[in-house]
Amino acid sequence: MTRNPQLGPDGELRHLLSIEGLPRSMIERILDTATSFIGVGDREVKKVPLLRGRSVFNLFFESSTRTRTTFDIAAQRLSADVFNLDIGVSSTSKGESLLDTIDNLAAMQADMFVVRHAQSGAPYLIAEHLDRTHAARASVINAGDGRHAHPTQGLLDMYTIRHFKGDFTQLRVAIVGDIRHSRVARSDIHALTTLGVPEVRAIAPMTLLPPGIEQLGVRVFYDMREGLRDVDVIIMLRLQSERMRGALLPSAQEYFKHYGLTADKLALARPDAIVMHPGPMNRGVEIDSSVADGSQAVILSQVTFGIAVRMAVMSLLAQG
Amino acid sequence: MTRNPQLGPDGELRHLLSIEGLPRSMIERILDTATSFIGVGDREVKKVPLLRGRSVFNLFFESSTRTRTTFDIAAQRLSADVFNLDIGVSSTSKGESLLDTIDNLAAMQADMFVVRHAQSGAPYLIAEHLDRTHAARASVINAGDGRHAHPTQGLLDMYTIRHFKGDFTQLRVAIVGDIRHSRVARSDIHALTTLGVPEVRAIAPMTLLPPGIEQLGVRVFYDMREGLRDVDVIIMLRLQSERMRGALLPSAQEYFKHYGLTADKLALARPDAIVMHPGPMNRGVEIDSSVADGSQAVILSQVTFGIAVRMAVMSLLAQG
Amino acid sequence: MTRNPQLGPDGELRHLLSIEGLPRSMIERILDTATSFIGVGDREVKKVPLLRGRSVFNLFFESSTRTRTTFDIAAQRLSADVFNLDIGVSSTSKGESLLDTIDNLAAMQADMFVVRHAQSGAPYLIAEHLDRTHAARASVINAGDGRHAHPTQGLLDMYTIRHFKGDFTQLRVAIVGDIRHSRVARSDIHALTTLGVPEVRAIAPMTLLPPGIEQLGVRVFYDMREGLRDVDVIIMLRLQSERMRGALLPSAQEYFKHYGLTADKLALARPDAIVMHPGPMNRGVEIDSSVADGSQAVILSQVTFGIAVRMAVMSLLAQG
Repeated sequence: MTRNPQLGPDGELRHLLSIEGLPRSMIERILDTATSFIGVGDREVKKVPLLRGRSVFNLFFESSTRTRTTFDIAAQRLSADVFNLDIGVSSTSKGESLLDTIDNLAAMQADMFVVRHAQSGAPYLIAEHLDRTHAARASVINAGDGRHAHPTQGLLDMYTIRHFKGDFTQLRVAIVGDIRHSRVARSDIHALTTLGVPEVRAIAPMTLLPPGIEQLGVRVFYDMREGLRDVDVIIMLRLQSERMRGALLPSAQEYFKHYGLTADKLALARPDAIVMHPGPMNRGVEIDSSVADGSQAVILSQVTFGIAVRMAVMSLLAQG
Repeated sequence: MTRNPQLGPDGELRHLLSIEGLPRSMIERILDTATSFIGVGDREVKKVPLLRGRSVFNLFFESSTRTRTTFDIAAQRLSADVFNLDIGVSSTSKGESLLDTIDNLAAMQADMFVVRHAQSGAPYLIAEHLDRTHAARASVINAGDGRHAHPTQGLLDMYTIRHFKGDFTQLRVAIVGDIRHSRVARSDIHALTTLGVPEVRAIAPMTLLPPGIEQLGVRVFYDMREGLRDVDVIIMLRLQSERMRGALLPSAQEYFKHYGLTADKLALARPDAIVMHPGPMNRGVEIDSSVADGSQAVILSQVTFGIAVRMAVMSLLAQG
Repeated sequence: MTRNPQLGPDGELRHLLSIEGLPRSMIERILDTATSFIGVGDREVKKVPLLRGRSVFNLFFESSTRTRTTFDIAAQRLSADVFNLDIGVSSTSKGESLLDTIDNLAAMQADMFVVRHAQSGAPYLIAEHLDRTHAARASVINAGDGRHAHPTQGLLDMYTIRHFKGDFTQLRVAIVGDIRHSRVARSDIHALTTLGVPEVRAIAPMTLLPPGIEQLGVRVFYDMREGLRDVDVIIMLRLQSERMRGALLPSAQEYFKHYGLTADKLALARPDAIVMHPGPMNRGVEIDSSVADGSQAVILSQVTFGIAVRMAVMSLLAQG
C-alpha cells in the first residue's frame, strides 16, 4: 500500500478507496457533481442515462443491506445494470482466491466494483490488481474496509456540512463516540482536515480512542460537555453492541450517561449546531430520541445526500 | 389504528392496507384497471412505462419468495426500479427500529413500500408514520400482515370470480379450510361482502374457525358436503403444516377425509362452479390432484390475474 | 427421457438441455451467433434490445452465485427482466412440488427458465411439462443438472477452442481430472465429438473415470505425461474438495503430483497448446499457478466468451 492508486494519469478519479490521499480539489469536484444529482431524486422519473449499459457489481464480503442498497439505488438511478453478489455462498467459499474472483468478474466486462470487506486494505488490493492486469478498465469503490475507511460516508458527511454550514474554514466539528473502531471517523477526520476545518475534536472515553489520534490534527476531549462547547457540527458515532458487551465499556446505561447526546448536552454547542449520525442509530445509547428527532438533527438529510454523492462518485469514475 | 388511511383527500388510492374500509367503487376501479394490464403479459415486450424511474422497495420482514416475486414482476413490467431488501440480515437485526428503517428508505426517495410482516398492523403503522412525517410521498402496499389481511390476494380473487362469473350479486361462495389463521380468508370475506355477494359460506372444523365469524355476514358449515351444495365458487385455503402437527387437527389424512376437496365432493356444487386456491397447494391434504388439475380449477388463472391486479394497484398508487 | 425436446418442429432451438442430441449445425449456429455478441461487452453501453420486456427466471435449486451471475449478465445485456429466485427459502420448502412451482411461474408469463438442479434430468422434466401443458411458451436452459450436463459450459468451451484453434477436425484434445463426477466433461466430450475432433483423450486415475467412457469415443490415459503428448487443447477439471476428503483419492498433494498441470507437464503438449479450466480453480491442486497465469492459459477468455455464448442461446430461444 505504498502508492495511492485513486487518481489516473490526468488527475481524474480512477478508484475511490479513501479520503486520505484525495486532493481537496477532487473532494470539491465530487461534492459539486453531487449537487447536480440532488434534483434527480425529487423527480417522478428518478433516472439519468449516464451509466446506461454499464455493469456495476456490488461485492459485499461483509453483509450490509443498508449500505448495499444505497449503492444499488445510486447505480440504478444512473441507469446502470447492477449485480448484487452474495459472496458468502459464492466461489470464495469454494476456496477460490479473492483475486481469482475479481479476475473472473473483470472478464465479464465489469465496469465498477463496490467492495465492502472486513479486512482493511482489501479494496486497495483489488484496485492495484486490476490496474496491473487489466489495462485500467474496472474501477473500485471502497464501501467500507475493516476499521480503515468508508470514503463515501465521509464525502456525504462533507456534503451535509457544506449544505448546512457553507464555509468549512470557520468551523468547530466534534466527533463523538467509538472513534477507535470507526472507519467513518477516520474518513471524516481526513476529509475535514483536507477541507480546511480549523478545529476537529474527538470526544470519547480513553478505551474508544485510537492511540496517536492527536497526530491527525485532532483535539481530544474525555469530557463530552467540555468537548461540545461552541461546536458547529456534532457527528455522533454508532456504538457497536459488541463493544457494550465487551471489556471496553461498563454498560450501555453508563455510556449514555457520559457520552449519549441529550438535549442538555446539545445546549452547550452553538445554537445553530447540526447533529449528524451515520446510522443505524442506537436510540438511548449514543443519542437520545428527543435529539435524534429534534430540529437540529440532519440525519435523514445525510441519507438523501448520500445517494447523490454516490451517484457523483460513480459518474466521475465512469468518465475517468 | 382508529382511522383508515388508505384514501387521500380526493378519494384517490393513497395506500393499500386492507380490503376492509375500501369502498366498492375503489375495488371496482382496481379491477377495471387490472383488465387493461392483462394484455401486457401476453406481449413479447411485457412492459409499460407507467412507473419508469420510480423506486419500489420490497420489504419482506417475513420471507415469501413467491409473493415477493409477484410484486417484483408487477413493478418491473411497469418499468419501476425494484429493490428487494433482505430484512433478516439488515439494520433491524442491528437493533434499528422499524420506523427508523422506514425513515431511512423514505429519505432515499422511495415511492412505494411493499410490506410483508408477521405482525398484524405493521403496514398501517408504516403508512401512518409516512403520512405524519414525510408529507405524503411514499405509498404502502400490504403484502400480508400476520393473520390480518392480504388485500392483493383478495383483489385477485375478486378479479378471478368476476372474470368467470360476471355478476357478484347472484353468487354463493364457499371458503373452505383454515379460516382462523388465514389473512386470505379475511380479505376475501370483506371483498365478497362489499361487492354484494349474497351468500358467503365458511366451511371448516370448529378448531379452524375464528370466534364470532358470523358477525362478518358469513354462514358457517362444519359439514363440507352440506356447505358445498349449489355453490358457484369454492375457495380452498392452504393448510399450514404447523397446524397439522399441532393440537388443532388429528392428522392430515383425517383432514383430507373431511375437508379435502375431492371430485365427489365437488360434484355437490353447481356444475359450472369454479375452484380457487391461493397457493402453494398441499395436494392430498386440502385438495385432491384430480380437482387441482381438473377443468373446474382456475388456480393458475388466479396467478396470471394476480400480476395484472398488482400492476393496477401500483399504477393507481403512483397516480394518487 | 426417451425423446430430446430441444428442437422445435422447424428445427429451431426450443430448449437447451444438453449438447447430446444437438445437431452440429445448431452448435455452429450458436457459436456464430455468439460471435456477434462478443463486441457488445466491449462497448460502454453493453446492451442490445433483443429480449426487452421478456421475463427470465433464474431457478437455482442448487446454489451457484458464479453461474447464476453469468446468466444474469447475459439476460440483462439483452435487456430482459431477470428474476432470481432463491429456491431454498421459497415454496418448494413449503412442500410444493417442482412442477407446481413451474406452473405458477409459467402463469406469470415467464419466457425463459434457467435451471440448475442437483438431480440429473430435472430440466428435461420441466421442459417436457411446459411443452405438454402450456402450448410451447417458456423455454428452459439447463445450467447444470447433477452429473449429467452443463451445456452452456460445453458451448463456451467450443467457442474458446474455435477462437484459438480454428478447425476442429485436426485437433487432439485432452480432458484431465475428475471426469467421473463432471457434467462439464460429459458436455465437452459430446460437443467435441459432434464437431469432428478426431482424438479426445481422458486423463484421470481409474477412480475418477466413469465406467464405459471409451464408448463415447474417448481414449483413456492413466498417465498424465503420456496423455498430454502432442495435444492442442488441455481442459483441466476442478477437483471437488469432497473427493479429496473421500475414499477416491489419497490426498490433494498426491493428486497434484500425478494429475496437477505444471509447466514441465505442459511442455509435453504442442508448443501452441491452450490450457482451459471451467473455474473456480484450485491452485496447487489440479493446476499450478505458473500455468494458470501463464501465456498458454485462456481461462479468462472462456469467461468472457461465456457471456456471449449465453446471450446467443437466449436470443435463439427467444426467436424459436
